[in-house]
Amino acid sequence: MKIIIIGGVAGGMAAATRLRRLDESAEIIVLEAGPYVSFSNCGLPYRLGGVIDDRAAVLPRSPEWFALRFEIDVRVGHRVTSIDPRAATVTVDIAGTGQVDTLGYDELIIATGATADLPPTLVSDHTFALRTIDDMDAIAERLDRPDVRSVVIVGAGYIGLEAAENVRRRGLDTTLVQRGPQIFPALDPEMVTAVHHELVEHGITVLTSTTVHRVDRTQVTFDDGASIAADLVIDATGITPASALAEAAGLRIGAGGGIRVDGLHRSSDPHIYAIGDVAEKTDHVTGAPTLIALAGLANRDGRAVADAIAGIGEPTAPALGTSIIGVFGVTAAAVGWNETRLRAARRPHRIVHVHPSSHASFYPGGSALAMKLLIDPDTDLLLGAQVVGRDGVDKRIDVLAVAMSAGITASGLKNLELAYAPQYGSAKDPVNIAGYVAENTARALVRTVQWHELAGHIAAGASVVDVRTPAEYDSGHIPGALNVPLDEIRHRMDGIPAGRVIVHCQVGQRGSTATRILSQAGRDVTNLDGGYLTWLAGTTTTHQPTMKEALV
Amino acid sequence: MKIIIIGGVAGGMAAATRLRRLDESAEIIVLEAGPYVSFSNCGLPYRLGGVIDDRAAVLPRSPEWFALRFEIDVRVGHRVTSIDPRAATVTVDIAGTGQVDTLGYDELIIATGATADLPPTLVSDHTFALRTIDDMDAIAERLDRPDVRSVVIVGAGYIGLEAAENVRRRGLDTTLVQRGPQIFPALDPEMVTAVHHELVEHGITVLTSTTVHRVDRTQVTFDDGASIAADLVIDATGITPASALAEAAGLRIGAGGGIRVDGLHRSSDPHIYAIGDVAEKTDHVTGAPTLIALAGLANRDGRAVADAIAGIGEPTAPALGTSIIGVFGVTAAAVGWNETRLRAARRPHRIVHVHPSSHASFYPGGSALAMKLLIDPDTDLLLGAQVVGRDGVDKRIDVLAVAMSAGITASGLKNLELAYAPQYGSAKDPVNIAGYVAENTARALVRTVQWHELAGHIAAGASVVDVRTPAEYDSGHIPGALNVPLDEIRHRMDGIPAGRVIVHCQVGQRGSTATRILSQAGRDVTNLDGGYLTWLAGTTTTHQPTMKEALV
Repeated sequence: MKIIIIGGVAGGMAAATRLRRLDESAEIIVLEAGPYVSFSNCGLPYRLGGVIDDRAAVLPRSPEWFALRFEIDVRVGHRVTSIDPRAATVTVDIAGTGQVDTLGYDELIIATGATADLPPTLVSDHTFALRTIDDMDAIAERLDRPDVRSVVIVGAGYIGLEAAENVRRRGLDTTLVQRGPQIFPALDPEMVTAVHHELVEHGITVLTSTTVHRVDRTQVTFDDGASIAADLVIDATGITPASALAEAAGLRIGAGGGIRVDGLHRSSDPHIYAIGDVAEKTDHVTGAPTLIALAGLANRDGRAVADAIAGIGEPTAPALGTSIIGVFGVTAAAVGWNETRLRAARRPHRIVHVHPSSHASFYPGGSALAMKLLIDPDTDLLLGAQVVGRDGVDKRIDVLAVAMSAGITASGLKNLELAYAPQYGSAKDPVNIAGYVAENTARALVRTVQWHELAGHIAAGASVVDVRTPAEYDSGHIPGALNVPLDEIRHRMDGIPAGRVIVHCQVGQRGSTATRILSQAGRDVTNLDGGYLTWLAGTTTTHQPTMKEALV
Repeated sequence: MKIIIIGGVAGGMAAATRLRRLDESAEIIVLEAGPYVSFSNCGLPYRLGGVIDDRAAVLPRSPEWFALRFEIDVRVGHRVTSIDPRAATVTVDIAGTGQVDTLGYDELIIATGATADLPPTLVSDHTFALRTIDDMDAIAERLDRPDVRSVVIVGAGYIGLEAAENVRRRGLDTTLVQRGPQIFPALDPEMVTAVHHELVEHGITVLTSTTVHRVDRTQVTFDDGASIAADLVIDATGITPASALAEAAGLRIGAGGGIRVDGLHRSSDPHIYAIGDVAEKTDHVTGAPTLIALAGLANRDGRAVADAIAGIGEPTAPALGTSIIGVFGVTAAAVGWNETRLRAARRPHRIVHVHPSSHASFYPGGSALAMKLLIDPDTDLLLGAQVVGRDGVDKRIDVLAVAMSAGITASGLKNLELAYAPQYGSAKDPVNIAGYVAENTARALVRTVQWHELAGHIAAGASVVDVRTPAEYDSGHIPGALNVPLDEIRHRMDGIPAGRVIVHCQVGQRGSTATRILSQAGRDVTNLDGGYLTWLAGTTTTHQPTMKEALV
């Protein structure tokens, strides 16, 4: 059996090595257009900032290594220019030789990944993407130049944020520009505030709702006519599946440009498979095709496609899109759908915000987590979750991701038996606490409103009662809120206005107790989900309205 | 409704506060024999070592606080001396008054926890357990005395190890004595080696297979007649459910002394419930009653019993026994059953050992994890797991615990979508890697032998082939092993003896590839699970044969 794999990074090499382990006799050829295989895209930003001080560290394996250990024929500088599914051949341009080759295959795996879409407005001789080793080297060379003092990063997703952090670590003037109203759209706006503040505190200029109009030699000009110095521009505006080859070959392509595949990663041609960023995934929430560009899924599916070709394949599990980022010590992570997306799709959902301590509060070193659950109101299953904090974030998103994939309900999170010693967690882990709150809302023991619904309720005549202590109230409160501390509420009910009451505390817990007290007394009472902290994070404007103001 | 709760620590107070949230009108009385409620047992060792520098931190709540916020009537110094289920009353001795009270209840919750069993051989006026605030204060007072220089801790479970670490942190001569052949029996012997070495490296004398015969004023004498200086002895030999009250009241008690309860935490009397360390749990692996003393379960069941009493109870999930400990920067964690227990119960199991890096190897700060899975060979479900390392241990045991409780198979671990950025994990997370190995063994793609089976196979004529590099081989190898590096194995098969071959590498991965190569060449080949590292950990004697030798 002769197998050709187009693309030699994450998924392609995972497929190649698994194929060899399954079949010593197969002929396995990897055709990689670039000069490197098996490199770690995810390490590239950290090499820029010097966190990874050895360039070779992001290049763990050479073609020779794969030849020696796995008898895989890895050909770098081999760009596939066309696929002929009928003839079962690919045509290859060999870099630097002018030579063109045609190779036959029994089975073909397309693992061409995604490419950065450089918007025309960003084109310049000092604009670079950050997708490849060559990109990294080019940016690093510029960053080393003494006359490069200001860097503009366009796009505030994963790559943009990581690039901004690492450029700033080198002491350069760093500006992060985002067209949309918030950075890091994987998270909902109130969850991203802490990340935004962290960037600003570390001296990064963050411009949201800002669009680049033009890049010149020394500056970037925005749509509103303002401009900012830029000796280097990093394009992190987004990627699209590198599916042109597949499309030209007549393979079925989805709406987002990904190759449509079945549960065994097979395209519309029975001998052509696709994995990694170029291939569609199946969305866990909807069961529909979707695009999720993550190294973990590429590796997972690389192994799975080898199994499929070897005849021991199993249907692929749907994809959750579990993802994480660290910026200056703050970690933000997400899985599944966020509220923004659910609302846009008009999909019903319940929401839970909690702010528990990352580990037992009596043991030093913990800090508050912000956690959000998105829950299907009919099934109580998780539709998504987000976690932000300085400690223990990665653990909680992984626990939530496993729970989500396993079909554990939001209320069922209360029963998860998570390891507890004071330095690692709490006897009631943050995930358990989120489960408690989810269950209370599912059972309608406590009704909640969201931070963005509060203004509407107040406009409709609801009263806001702040059940925190007077000291907490005095250090900042919701305009118009009446302060009735929780421990006095049973004896001060007469002072609480009749009609709809929205109570709140700092994070939601005391508010929940107050809601129980008042509702059992016959009041029409609702708790502000996530408390003052969530409301504050949601209503604090992180959008700097114009670039000019931000630069004053 | 009048509810009496006997015991005011974890489970009891969780039940009391949940009851109040559910029912503003209930009368809730907590009777606590000791002087404190709602303290954190798990923090006590860390207070001794000064990690927690404020004594008040382990005493988060007072009776007054519970009265104010929850209108719970908490009575400390109230020791229940008997329960009369027919009359639905309890009799109470009130400390320091000579007064005896009889209180009626509608529903009774027994949350008396467990008590340390001081063995008669340990009795002395300077032997203390470490279960209560009074214990902690007494030990702390002794540790502060200038003439207390040597401390002997008897029992090397959770409390014993944490106490040893914290005593040693104060610079005292510290000896940890364990009757059995290994410390920390929650883990299997090869998994505990790293913890044992860490204790020794930090200057703790660790004596296994050693039994205390007598404690005198200045020394501890062992069964072999040797003795060691001891100005203070900490008893961490074990606990038993404090079920004497329940037994005297005629409630059904299980074999281990725990109160037998149903899925709603109800004892054999319909108005008496039991939770926490005094109550039996349902074992996840067998479905049979078992004893598991963990704060997390006590809190979980405290909330659940309140729901049950309020009429909104749900059947309790079985218990996994997820647990974790940190000692001098090494973390060891376990869930479910270990190999020692499975073998003792003659329950069939498959085993997987892996040693992946805690996060991407190209990003600084990671370190190797040792992970072990115990798998049901019929269902592929997890029976247990263990993780040891310096980074990322708590995350992996929690992921495995959720997978186990959700019925995700060992092979299914490969599909878990865990958050990846280089500082948090790998594109193939350690849990995924364990899933890969589990699947390979489940599908019989790779057969494995365990470290403790190797000697038997060699005795039966098997050859051992070490596929590591010559440099690795020269730095230590299994006696009699032939060195054929993996990258040469395809061309050196003639040099590998006929018959049964056991291959191994450092951690198992290269050995797995070698096994695939040789088995496809028709050889009778088996991989040494977990490689040289696991074999070394298992065969390195951590047992110091006699106390005398250890003290030379």
